[in-house]
Amino acid sequence: MLTATPSHHPLERVEISLGDRSYPILIGRGLIDEAGTFEDVPSSSDAMIVTNTTVGPIYAERLARSLAPRHRRVHTVALPDGEGYKTWETLNQIFDALLAQGCDRKTVLYALGGGVVGDMTGFAAASYMRGVPFVQVPTTLLAQVDSSVGGKTGINHPAGKNMIGAFYQPRLVVCDLDTLATLPERELSAGLAEVIKYGPIADVGFLDWLDARIEGLRQRDPEALAHAVRRSCEIKAEVVGRDERESGLRATLNFGHTFGHAIEAGLGYGTWLHGEAVGCGMVLAAHLSARLGLVDAAFVARLTNLIERAGLPVRAPQLDATDNSGRYLALMRVDKKAEAGEIRFVLIDGAGRAVVRSAPDALVREVIDACSCA
Amino acid sequence: MLTATPSHHPLERVEISLGDRSYPILIGRGLIDEAGTFEDVPSSSDAMIVTNTTVGPIYAERLARSLAPRHRRVHTVALPDGEGYKTWETLNQIFDALLAQGCDRKTVLYALGGGVVGDMTGFAAASYMRGVPFVQVPTTLLAQVDSSVGGKTGINHPAGKNMIGAFYQPRLVVCDLDTLATLPERELSAGLAEVIKYGPIADVGFLDWLDARIEGLRQRDPEALAHAVRRSCEIKAEVVGRDERESGLRATLNFGHTFGHAIEAGLGYGTWLHGEAVGCGMVLAAHLSARLGLVDAAFVARLTNLIERAGLPVRAPQLDATDNSGRYLALMRVDKKAEAGEIRFVLIDGAGRAVVRSAPDALVREVIDACSCA
Repeated sequence: MLTATPSHHPLERVEISLGDRSYPILIGRGLIDEAGTFEDVPSSSDAMIVTNTTVGPIYAERLARSLAPRHRRVHTVALPDGEGYKTWETLNQIFDALLAQGCDRKTVLYALGGGVVGDMTGFAAASYMRGVPFVQVPTTLLAQVDSSVGGKTGINHPAGKNMIGAFYQPRLVVCDLDTLATLPERELSAGLAEVIKYGPIADVGFLDWLDARIEGLRQRDPEALAHAVRRSCEIKAEVVGRDERESGLRATLNFGHTFGHAIEAGLGYGTWLHGEAVGCGMVLAAHLSARLGLVDAAFVARLTNLIERAGLPVRAPQLDATDNSGRYLALMRVDKKAEAGEIRFVLIDGAGRAVVRSAPDALVREVIDACSCA
Repeated sequence: MLTATPSHHPLERVEISLGDRSYPILIGRGLIDEAGTFEDVPSSSDAMIVTNTTVGPIYAERLARSLAPRHRRVHTVALPDGEGYKTWETLNQIFDALLAQGCDRKTVLYALGGGVVGDMTGFAAASYMRGVPFVQVPTTLLAQVDSSVGGKTGINHPAGKNMIGAFYQPRLVVCDLDTLATLPERELSAGLAEVIKYGPIADVGFLDWLDARIEGLRQRDPEALAHAVRRSCEIKAEVVGRDERESGLRATLNFGHTFGHAIEAGLGYGTWLHGEAVGCGMVLAAHLSARLGLVDAAFVARLTNLIERAGLPVRAPQLDATDNSGRYLALMRVDKKAEAGEIRFVLIDGAGRAVVRSAPDALVREVIDACSCA
């Protein structure tokens, strides 16, 4: 699964196996500045770099230079930055830019930024002229280890997160580890939430490694980051290859997300970062797992400690002054995993294995009340 | 390909063969009122009938009764009627209704109406929670013979028609011929444009039949309508089965549409009906075919006469007072079939066969000038 380039820094490669929709994830340093990174992307007259106003000024021109051999014209559109802008209005800015430039249906879209840019660019690519190719160039840890891989794309609706979107696979994912050097600390921690997730649901050994290296990761030790990104991508690739459209196994990747989505929606998108909500959501889900007798208290304590050391919140915020747990329940009932109004939780059934199941409302309320900020 | 029901009226069945996305088109009378019509649709808690304010009052309750055995709750949302409403804002009314009713990702959408309802419902189904099942129940001739079949879904953008959408196949198409009895005359003619199209591109014998039966079709002779719908669906099924995502052959179904889309966009969506623009567009494309030496003048005259007898416009409208043909060209350059700014026309190369190719601007201008209203 790993290959080394002849150059001085190692290039790692993880394959997503989905038949004729298979594609590689390239992981390494300085990838944005190398034209060779993109040599397997289809050539076309036009390319559109979709980025945001934070990331664009740093990387867009450098990426455009590397794309010049493959596309005659490389356009750029910079969206406003933040989860609060993951809306139809912002998505439409991509369509407006594509149409203003006369982009045809061979045009390749490049998502340069974090999860919001990746999700919106992917959905724009899925929908523009009923589908054009796209490439993910994630510049946040969260996007590199999770959202850029696997083809989930979409936008938010006031009533729920990622309610409108498509399963649409990129042609290539480029994780340039150098982009993590400039990432704000809060976003690094948010990304670590999605890294930590892979331990309890799939790999106890990785959880042990994280316990030992969490401080190094926060200090951006390049070797530790490279391992964390690669191992996360390997686990995600394995799961997505077996269940692309989330008919079963893939739902386990949403560990912490049912509670997390309620927190994000309840506070208003963008108040907490997605990764922060997922970090806290994993604590809640671990407590629920324990109350259902699936894990012991030591596991809950260990996971909570790791999440806290990653710089993430572990106490659930108040979403409603009079009926806080009721508000959580109401928000979780519109989660995409819910079926006929029954909330489906991803729970840990012994560390290293996840199950998807429902739980009595009363028990869920107890967990929320026990874990909430006063 | 045909089966007969034990009941007094014949039920015809045309299969769309697309592997695990295959589905039947049912053609017959009184189908909306029979629960058996829908017996192969997946059962679920919720269903949503998406219709418009014209069709809904006539058929929505009847359809809901037939769906009762398959879905515990059948909701309805009625959109404003007309091509001018094929926008994101209207699409969002579908998402709002789905979320307001707590519809989960097993919910089945039913498109009850013409092409606009079908295209928007299909795109809503493709995008809601990244994809839910849907059924087409077309109530216009145009939708029965063309737009409801083959999985093209989408909405318009101010800069071009159907610019945003998805290839997403329905589970079933139900063509209830009785719904054509109440169709306004102008819409019946618009539907005939798409019926006529199948002759020149695929079946000269069908063109002969149309020449003989066009008056009967306008008088809604049930037997003639049944044959026209079935033969149109058969040809479309054959083409879509061989080229679902329009990498080649399927583009020939757009005969008349390159000019037609320019007319629709240039006049403002909804001024001419889609079928009217396609009818006139076929006349222009036939003239262009003749000027390129692909067909003779007699064919152009014969096709123009048939289109006129179908009650459709055959003279191109003025889109610009100072540079009319330049305006047509500019609008056609943003057509989805255009590549690197080169317009791709569907032309007739001997009646019964279509080719997709470019043409010199000067020749296109001559055709537009020669065929325009003074």
